[in-house]
Amino acid sequence: MVYRISGSVEDFLAHAVEAARKAGEIIRRSFYETKLVEHKGLVDLVTETDKACEELIFSSLKQQYPDHKFIGEETTAACGVTELTDEPTWIVDPLDGTTNFVHGFPFVCVSIGLTIGRIPTVGVVYNPIMDELFTAIHGKGAFLNGKSIKASSQTELVKSLLATEAGTKRDKATLDASTNRINSLLFKVRSLRMSGSCALNLCGIACGRLELFYEVGFGGPWDVAAGAVILTEAGGLVFDPTGKEFDITAQRVAASNGFLKDAFVDALKQSE
Amino acid sequence: MVYRISGSVEDFLAHAVEAARKAGEIIRRSFYETKLVEHKGLVDLVTETDKACEELIFSSLKQQYPDHKFIGEETTAACGVTELTDEPTWIVDPLDGTTNFVHGFPFVCVSIGLTIGRIPTVGVVYNPIMDELFTAIHGKGAFLNGKSIKASSQTELVKSLLATEAGTKRDKATLDASTNRINSLLFKVRSLRMSGSCALNLCGIACGRLELFYEVGFGGPWDVAAGAVILTEAGGLVFDPTGKEFDITAQRVAASNGFLKDAFVDALKQSE
Repeated sequence: MVYRISGSVEDFLAHAVEAARKAGEIIRRSFYETKLVEHKGLVDLVTETDKACEELIFSSLKQQYPDHKFIGEETTAACGVTELTDEPTWIVDPLDGTTNFVHGFPFVCVSIGLTIGRIPTVGVVYNPIMDELFTAIHGKGAFLNGKSIKASSQTELVKSLLATEAGTKRDKATLDASTNRINSLLFKVRSLRMSGSCALNLCGIACGRLELFYEVGFGGPWDVAAGAVILTEAGGLVFDPTGKEFDITAQRVAASNGFLKDAFVDALKQSE
Repeated sequence: MVYRISGSVEDFLAHAVEAARKAGEIIRRSFYETKLVEHKGLVDLVTETDKACEELIFSSLKQQYPDHKFIGEETTAACGVTELTDEPTWIVDPLDGTTNFVHGFPFVCVSIGLTIGRIPTVGVVYNPIMDELFTAIHGKGAFLNGKSIKASSQTELVKSLLATEAGTKRDKATLDASTNRINSLLFKVRSLRMSGSCALNLCGIACGRLELFYEVGFGGPWDVAAGAVILTEAGGLVFDPTGKEFDITAQRVAASNGFLKDAFVDALKQSE
């Protein structure tokens, strides 16, 4: 199916980058203030930063593309779930890695994805603390600060670096399943990293720093919309942890470089 | 006991910083080459970088301090364990975070510590990729890129960020103990980070990005000698995971900000 869209994907990307950089500036300023505020103030600072960034990104993009749809973490929290349609839809996480932001751990980012016909088509992930800008357009490659990036060519699990996250749920069933899975996978991979940002984990595979990532029960499509384009354009693969097709609305994701999907899906199955 | 030492601790620190920056330059150059070499070549590159950095640091410091003792990861691997004495002793990890280095994950560092009377007295940890230089002199505070740093003032485990590492051992007993410990601790803390560098985890608590860290079975005193001075000078605490006094030669470490030691030791005991 073909959708008539006004504006080129290059323009979409350029405007998304502009919005991500502006929001990144807000995050960078607040990031270095988090140590100065008391706890109550800190929560406010996080919420304020989150909201200010989402408003900035939405208003900037809505001005350019008044007919597009918008899904954002903050808006969804306030107004409920917005259904993903075939229309051009901007899916935004204004501040991925909130816990890192609170603690001053440098893995935080702005994530802006655009789906057209439900296909992730434009992706921008910007870490303003490390000044790393990941960008991609469907069919046109992936870039880090303007330089072409590729997922690694590693073909063995045992030489691969795996990422996952502890998540936020703390009930016994979820935590036991989570650490049992980690236990099973650690026998098969080189080592494990937990950085605290889903979008940056996807970009980490895209630029060859990591080979494997999975997360179950994350926030929503805003965590993966941009990273999915960036990773697939870098030659990586995004899929459901069962090996089935990736569903951007399913709140679970697995990802690998271009060679390890089958082995990783097997390992994930054995870890259940 | 007082040791007659030739040279001031400020001079020791200045020379250590100079050596760390030079070694960091070597690491930075190689870091961006790791993606270009084949596997066999990659192992050589890691070993070469490690050795080149240790030789540079040792020759630079030996020229200044021919009477001092030296303990390094590479030298120990080649020549066996050097006993730690009361003499001024430089304890050096030329490249902490080797797996990260291989994968291009940006948590790598040079770690240079000096013990005098077995007390960690000078510490330099330099991450050349993120250009973060952590420094401390016993009794004179800790600094990140020249700015004074302090461990966090968090007093509740549940609001604390914990770091640990998966380590390199993959036998069932070690891995089961490791993931059981993680399971138990995740019920009590906010979240978990695994960055792949012991020295940077200690520095992460020193600058308030993390509250808690433990690792059992790491390489040797070179992983902790510098970080221990930096963390204690930032108001943090370094101790044995049992709560007993920290032994720099024991290959196990726990660390916290200035407030959480007792609660963390209890949590570690309950996690056994």
